Amino acid sequence: MKTKKFLLQEKDIPTAWYNIAADMENKPRPILNPATKEPLREEDLYPLFAKELAHQELNATDAWIEIPEGVRDMYKIWRPTPLVRAYGLEKALDTPAHIYFKNESISPVGSHKLNSALAQAYFCKKEGVTNITTETGAGQWGAAMSYAAKAFGLELAVYMVKISYHQKPYRRSIMQTFGAQVIASPSMSTKAGRQILTDHPNYQGSLGTAISEAVELAIQTPNCKYTLGSVLNHVMLHQSVIGLEAEKQMEMAGEYPDIVIGCFGGGSNFSGISFPFLRHKLTEGKDIRIIAAEPASCPKLTRGQFQYDFGDEAGYTPLIPMFTLGHTFSPAHIHAGGLRYHGAGAIVSQLHKDKLMEAVDIPQLDTFDAATLFARVEGIIPAPESAHAIAATIREAQQAREEGKQKVILFNLSGHGLIDMAAYDQYFAGDLTNFDLTDEEVEKNIAGLEKII
Amino acid sequence: MKTKKFLLQEKDIPTAWYNIAADMENKPRPILNPATKEPLREEDLYPLFAKELAHQELNATDAWIEIPEGVRDMYKIWRPTPLVRAYGLEKALDTPAHIYFKNESISPVGSHKLNSALAQAYFCKKEGVTNITTETGAGQWGAAMSYAAKAFGLELAVYMVKISYHQKPYRRSIMQTFGAQVIASPSMSTKAGRQILTDHPNYQGSLGTAISEAVELAIQTPNCKYTLGSVLNHVMLHQSVIGLEAEKQMEMAGEYPDIVIGCFGGGSNFSGISFPFLRHKLTEGKDIRIIAAEPASCPKLTRGQFQYDFGDEAGYTPLIPMFTLGHTFSPAHIHAGGLRYHGAGAIVSQLHKDKLMEAVDIPQLDTFDAATLFARVEGIIPAPESAHAIAATIREAQQAREEGKQKVILFNLSGHGLIDMAAYDQYFAGDLTNFDLTDEEVEKNIAGLEKII
Repeated sequence: MKTKKFLLQEKDIPTAWYNIAADMENKPRPILNPATKEPLREEDLYPLFAKELAHQELNATDAWIEIPEGVRDMYKIWRPTPLVRAYGLEKALDTPAHIYFKNESISPVGSHKLNSALAQAYFCKKEGVTNITTETGAGQWGAAMSYAAKAFGLELAVYMVKISYHQKPYRRSIMQTFGAQVIASPSMSTKAGRQILTDHPNYQGSLGTAISEAVELAIQTPNCKYTLGSVLNHVMLHQSVIGLEAEKQMEMAGEYPDIVIGCFGGGSNFSGISFPFLRHKLTEGKDIRIIAAEPASCPKLTRGQFQYDFGDEAGYTPLIPMFTLGHTFSPAHIHAGGLRYHGAGAIVSQLHKDKLMEAVDIPQLDTFDAATLFARVEGIIPAPESAHAIAATIREAQQAREEGKQKVILFNLSGHGLIDMAAYDQYFAGDLTNFDLTDEEVEKNIAGLEKII
Repeated sequence: MKTKKFLLQEKDIPTAWYNIAADMENKPRPILNPATKEPLREEDLYPLFAKELAHQELNATDAWIEIPEGVRDMYKIWRPTPLVRAYGLEKALDTPAHIYFKNESISPVGSHKLNSALAQAYFCKKEGVTNITTETGAGQWGAAMSYAAKAFGLELAVYMVKISYHQKPYRRSIMQTFGAQVIASPSMSTKAGRQILTDHPNYQGSLGTAISEAVELAIQTPNCKYTLGSVLNHVMLHQSVIGLEAEKQMEMAGEYPDIVIGCFGGGSNFSGISFPFLRHKLTEGKDIRIIAAEPASCPKLTRGQFQYDFGDEAGYTPLIPMFTLGHTFSPAHIHAGGLRYHGAGAIVSQLHKDKLMEAVDIPQLDTFDAATLFARVEGIIPAPESAHAIAATIREAQQAREEGKQKVILFNLSGHGLIDMAAYDQYFAGDLTNFDLTDEEVEKNIAGLEKII
């Protein structure tokens, strides 16, 4: 009988995170203080982040950073995750390609987000923080942070993008079950929220706005830090456990990927699956393609501009060197709420600029076509975000068939879609549209950016 | 670092199901033809079930029945499942007990039900069946059967208990995503449905009624069989993979359970986790307690009568020797829809009569107290059904603390509750009640039963 899953034991959970910046020839450009335009210092981040996280963000120089035992112990709740050979999908596509996916959906909160949530809660707790804030799009990050906060005894307030708050009420319930306070964003509870509600009364929110609110609340709350589920260097670091496990598992399978694919919002799961493989390209010149799959309605990598920009809508954050559509960009209401973010993180942006990776953008309907096919042949209903990676995988597998090449494709199944069933209902009812961004819309948004790079 | 999970490899997926009837001194009483009151013959079941399943139901005499490779291959999608040491729960309860749970919730459809769904679909497909029907309460079985039907290329119609159809719309969506047709029961599509709607216009359904509808549709549809997710002997057989894996994993943990606990509806997950351990009691005289945890609103084992009764509301099925509250019993609208069934299967009923197992009944609010505690300390939000097993486990762990005994408790986490979040919302809002059955209600229902045993 054919092996379908490649399973590791708890002892195989990585003992160190991989910091790709150490191996990059062109280092990511520095994050800047928006007032002085000088590179940010660790101390500048202390009001927002736990010190250890500020250090990881700005000054981690080693390629390997030890995972504290307190974090690794929590990883054991669900890690290691399986690597799965997608025989069903291969057969359905009649492709010579070998398709593998890393199944991060078996996490108790349904996605890869717990990998960084637990690390961030751990470091906050370690330095005596009592309260944390965060934002969430579709709610995958918020659900993960809610459990992590509860596990480490921290109070948590989550700003959830309003459109997702209504689209995905069960994710709100999950956060509340773990004891978190959930606020629909934009809200009246912050200056940033009030301002945007005044300017745009029916605004259904964006990750950029929710970040502004969460940052503002963190700064105004005693003994409180802010946490973020994507974009930042320390998040990419924590997520490397995905790819590090997958590396061992591909060895068990006796294959090596020609292509590694992740869906792309701010970069957390994409970096997690791909950086440990990209390492082989950077350090050994290995021939491997890395593909980020983003929504056609929010195409910062394929059609944005490489630019210093704020991480949030209100401009509270430092300036990050990013491929961006502009921090005031308001993405369409696609169901992949976790991908509705205007920019890419500093590391990914540098890698993309240096052509060490590629990006594709996928229309919403293609993602649901892919998701439904995947569900029916592999049994797992994917999150709308992860469906972008599946759609990109299908394109590559079809290409392999046309070329008659037996390529090995690895993608990250970042989460399941059991809380996103309303999206599937709409898809089957024919009520979904693509929301592809036009050239004019892209131009209009980018035109407002101050050209710093 | 302490080991939290005990993980097997694909090669450790059992190669044979365990048939406990072979080892029972008092065999389960025969299932009867209601017209003749004679024991049913295999042929009598052919109109309803695939032949192989009819054989497993009535005439399986071997203790071990080989799992076909086509089923075992499908089990690889998610099996083996982890055995988890619940350190978080032990700490929260300050108990000397060692608590383990078998995590069946990582199945792609969220519960243990796939273990039998895939087997039933396989045997139907093997003998050329093209259409199948089934019923579902909370939707865990329906979701599993929907994927299994799609995987084996069968058309499926699911009668979903109306109260659950409205309480758990995402499970309906999941079934539809896998391509199944879902009908709220009672419906106008069957004689049984029309009759009960005429008699009780606002009836919100029960598993008993949904079974009548699914059976009726199967009989009226060409090349169609009926499938059932619990109660029947062949379902218990397929579910034994749960306990067989757990047996190996408890060995890895270097412990042996003093107590094995499963929630109880018709007996599928309960039998699955417990029969392979009960085997040690039957064949080696091992000292082990087996506990079924049922809802206080549907207490057939603790307060029902051992009796021949129909499996469905309309009286279409053969007569089954069961602990029952009467086949017309209408259970309260608890959220554990999978436990809203009037009777226990023939094997479990015999074991219970022979005092080889115990049963406890748990009020709905206790189950949500237990579920919320479990979610916060172990990270997994349990299904309302599984919460009954957790509540019973907590009782035993508290007892162990009082007695100062280091007992080893194993329970089955039959499914996650991510699709049941509306129930948690109601619990936190204070809108849930217990619906405990009064003695008068029990008496009233039992009084109508014909005393055959």
